[in-house]
Amino acid sequence: MYTRLYRNQMETKEKYVIGLDFGTDSCRALVVDVRDGAEKATGVCFYPRWKNGLYCDAQANRYRQHPMDYVEAMTEAVREAISHLSPAEVAAICGMCFDTTGSTPALTDANGTPLALLPEFAEDPDAMFILWKDHTAVREAEQINALVKESGLDYLMYEGGTYSSEWVWSKVLHVINTNAKISAAACSWVEHCDWMTGLMTGNTQPESMYRSRCAAGHKAMWHERWGLPSADFLRKLHPRLADMLPRLYTETHTSGVRAGGLTAEWAVRVGLPVGIAVSVGAIDAHMGAVGASVAPGVLTRIIGTSTCDIMVAAKEEIGDRCIPGICGQVDGSVLPGYIGFEAGQSAFGDIYAWFKQVLSWPLQFIPDGEAKQRIQRDMLVELTRAAQLSEPSLTSVVALDWMNGRRTPDADQNVKGMIAGLTLGSSAPDIYRALVEATAFGSRRIAEHMQAQGLRIDSVNAIGGISKKAPFVMQTLADVMNMPIRVIRSEQACALGAAMFAAVAAGVYGNISEAIACMGSDVEAEYKPDPARVKVYEGLYEKYLELTKSANRVR
Amino acid sequence: MYTRLYRNQMETKEKYVIGLDFGTDSCRALVVDVRDGAEKATGVCFYPRWKNGLYCDAQANRYRQHPMDYVEAMTEAVREAISHLSPAEVAAICGMCFDTTGSTPALTDANGTPLALLPEFAEDPDAMFILWKDHTAVREAEQINALVKESGLDYLMYEGGTYSSEWVWSKVLHVINTNAKISAAACSWVEHCDWMTGLMTGNTQPESMYRSRCAAGHKAMWHERWGLPSADFLRKLHPRLADMLPRLYTETHTSGVRAGGLTAEWAVRVGLPVGIAVSVGAIDAHMGAVGASVAPGVLTRIIGTSTCDIMVAAKEEIGDRCIPGICGQVDGSVLPGYIGFEAGQSAFGDIYAWFKQVLSWPLQFIPDGEAKQRIQRDMLVELTRAAQLSEPSLTSVVALDWMNGRRTPDADQNVKGMIAGLTLGSSAPDIYRALVEATAFGSRRIAEHMQAQGLRIDSVNAIGGISKKAPFVMQTLADVMNMPIRVIRSEQACALGAAMFAAVAAGVYGNISEAIACMGSDVEAEYKPDPARVKVYEGLYEKYLELTKSANRVR
Repeated sequence: MYTRLYRNQMETKEKYVIGLDFGTDSCRALVVDVRDGAEKATGVCFYPRWKNGLYCDAQANRYRQHPMDYVEAMTEAVREAISHLSPAEVAAICGMCFDTTGSTPALTDANGTPLALLPEFAEDPDAMFILWKDHTAVREAEQINALVKESGLDYLMYEGGTYSSEWVWSKVLHVINTNAKISAAACSWVEHCDWMTGLMTGNTQPESMYRSRCAAGHKAMWHERWGLPSADFLRKLHPRLADMLPRLYTETHTSGVRAGGLTAEWAVRVGLPVGIAVSVGAIDAHMGAVGASVAPGVLTRIIGTSTCDIMVAAKEEIGDRCIPGICGQVDGSVLPGYIGFEAGQSAFGDIYAWFKQVLSWPLQFIPDGEAKQRIQRDMLVELTRAAQLSEPSLTSVVALDWMNGRRTPDADQNVKGMIAGLTLGSSAPDIYRALVEATAFGSRRIAEHMQAQGLRIDSVNAIGGISKKAPFVMQTLADVMNMPIRVIRSEQACALGAAMFAAVAAGVYGNISEAIACMGSDVEAEYKPDPARVKVYEGLYEKYLELTKSANRVR
Repeated sequence: MYTRLYRNQMETKEKYVIGLDFGTDSCRALVVDVRDGAEKATGVCFYPRWKNGLYCDAQANRYRQHPMDYVEAMTEAVREAISHLSPAEVAAICGMCFDTTGSTPALTDANGTPLALLPEFAEDPDAMFILWKDHTAVREAEQINALVKESGLDYLMYEGGTYSSEWVWSKVLHVINTNAKISAAACSWVEHCDWMTGLMTGNTQPESMYRSRCAAGHKAMWHERWGLPSADFLRKLHPRLADMLPRLYTETHTSGVRAGGLTAEWAVRVGLPVGIAVSVGAIDAHMGAVGASVAPGVLTRIIGTSTCDIMVAAKEEIGDRCIPGICGQVDGSVLPGYIGFEAGQSAFGDIYAWFKQVLSWPLQFIPDGEAKQRIQRDMLVELTRAAQLSEPSLTSVVALDWMNGRRTPDADQNVKGMIAGLTLGSSAPDIYRALVEATAFGSRRIAEHMQAQGLRIDSVNAIGGISKKAPFVMQTLADVMNMPIRVIRSEQACALGAAMFAAVAAGVYGNISEAIACMGSDVEAEYKPDPARVKVYEGLYEKYLELTKSANRVR
């Protein structure tokens, strides 16, 4: 219906939008046809300083990214994408929108400029963006959780009940606590997605720039009932945090809202038409869910090294209920007008990669070369092939997927992984299969947690690397969850979601549901539960739940 | 003192004894100087049919050995050993004694001939010796345990409370249950160690041959209070078992008792002097403990693929007490006049071999050759080297050593192994270290169980392959058990123990204690606990105990 509507209005003229997806390592620019979501052109650029390992310390779990990495990579990615278009097609681009990792904040001066862009802080990692996976602020997160517990207002009621070291206030507090020069210079902070939008529209002024509802609600304890946490609350953490409050925000905006027009300066730099609509941005997984045609009753899973799980539900369905133990529920964080829910597993594909790493240990004793590279390259494929030679049984090896701690339900960085049911006959493929099943059990645990809180889940939509390259994993997931799983065809669902919001901000569609209906990607594969395996996995899942209890006792 | 005594009597003439040790794969003959235990000559021969994989089915856990394998291997081993001696030295051999694996029984005809030696059963695996590790009789063991529970007399009170599928009655019942021809032909059964003694002395007549106290008491529910289980009891298992009772035994004999003289026929066949004393035999681990100079307060551990743990205590120290959950306590099974205790771990070195096997999985993709062989040969050495680069800590990986079930305390074939405390940073050497620690924790658990029952343990004497070739394992064992561990120098402690009993049977010594004092091996290494590691392992051991509870819930 929407398609017809659109075609009636627009059929004489092509229009394009551009979605810009900032991942952990690179920026992708995706030019999309607003009529049908066709992916017209794409460009990718890796962050040059990050690629060279600058400003990071893996031992200390410190991961920082220089703002110039973002600017340079985006410029390059956009220029590459539009190099595939004719001048007329470039001129038909009418909107843009950003998604980024999150929470990835930077401290700024009074003008909203990340401190690393000032000459005196250009090389100070504390002046840069603090990447989502930076874990330097573990102690500060504990401090925040303790303070929330003793304060009158439960700022965490909509964030799952536990504040993470990965989230903005922990990170800002850690830098303030440990770097006096930065502490003296910092006047505010900005999330990566908001800074990009502000930069493009010429409005990075911290007290007036457009802030993403998604990042604010899921990561910064913002809620429409109270705004950000109060000055009193922040002062107890550190007086400098309370000082920032006048240069922060009380209002937030959902994606699809037009934050402004592309400035002439940036239009020239990136090669896009001046004045095109720039939409309010959001965190990548949330945009990915939109790109995967999110809807009530569908669990959207972004499955890669870890997972991010996104749900939406109508406000009237949720009412006043708060769902504990997840990464938050925010009005409009995914789809305006719906409550968005975020959950996830701390490790998914990373667990397979870990096992490959363990099995690769003896390969250090053979000389580098083509043979060794081939073994390492094919190892997961061969393990999969061997694992599929036998069927799961109730006496199989069974594992617990907490090798990187637990994200949801009930975040806990201190729990660890297990492998049980081992015999002298347990082979490497047996263990690999158990690890695949463990990641699926962890997925089921999340779905059951949400269902127990009254959220309806009928099926799963999957995006991300694993969903496309690991059919064995996906089939196991369907069998364990006892739900059909659809893999979305788009390779760039996050950028596609951003492009949909760009189309809304540009006025092509009246709302995001219309954009999804016209621009949504189709499904490239559907995995249906196998009834025999479903039954076996019911039993193995009971063992998995038993292991979760054990792991809490053996930390 | 004993040495002097002996020298006064014998100084003008050399005397030798020969210990014959039947392991799982081969027979070893060890010629020993009775004066000082010096190992004069040795011969080894592998069982020819077994080596070719005959009569076994690993999938079904069926392991059978043909009686001719024993006869041929023994003949060859003895001939090889004495080939290194002068005729005068051979003539100075005055006694022999056997130790074998156990319980390794065969069904016999009315003359005590193993059925496989009759032409009609020559190729029937059920007519052969049923090797200790054969697990075909799991159901029969359950049946026996159930029957003991409901019977008035607790035949298992001195066998740890649980009858094993590895023991003679389970195995005999299984064959009777499943092979009608054998069932019809079988009149009795014989343990491997007793058959060898009977064969050499010309007395295999089942109702009169010398039966080992050790095998009878630890494996056949024999006790001096009641003899073997009653006809009523056996009839409830199967009438054929009760039929055998008249051709079995009520009396048993301790090792060192002279069962007879070597017959002329066998003297010619093996090349030993006719009429030399043949001692009553025993199970290998018990003889090994004697060869390792067993004494009250010392836990003797035979450490190889699995462990066998032997203790002795004065009768007056034990009184009427029964120690539950071990593999039995038998008056005179190790040292005549002392109660002998047997316990053990179902897997020890086998667990390291299993992990090596898991890590070797990717090596299938490199061509066979010298490089690959070297990697496999050196893998445990390299893992050890890498594991030793870091110290254990309370946050280390921690494992449970039940990959082959649990032998003691509280035998249970259905429990399985675990690896816990895994993170994405856990390396192959980290896991290997945890497995080594797990085998040590299992050892500590056994020692604590015995200590809790009032047995004194001051130190550990170790024999077996692992004790000599794995110093890292032995040091970890000392640190975990918080006890000094002495490694006995003899490479053939079991055969040495048998030789000591041969010397007693030959009348060279009045009792085994005198023989041990003169012929005992010295210590080649002593491992002392490291106080810092002892403390860390106290904490990790708590986690291990937690895992034992988890494994009982996740079977």
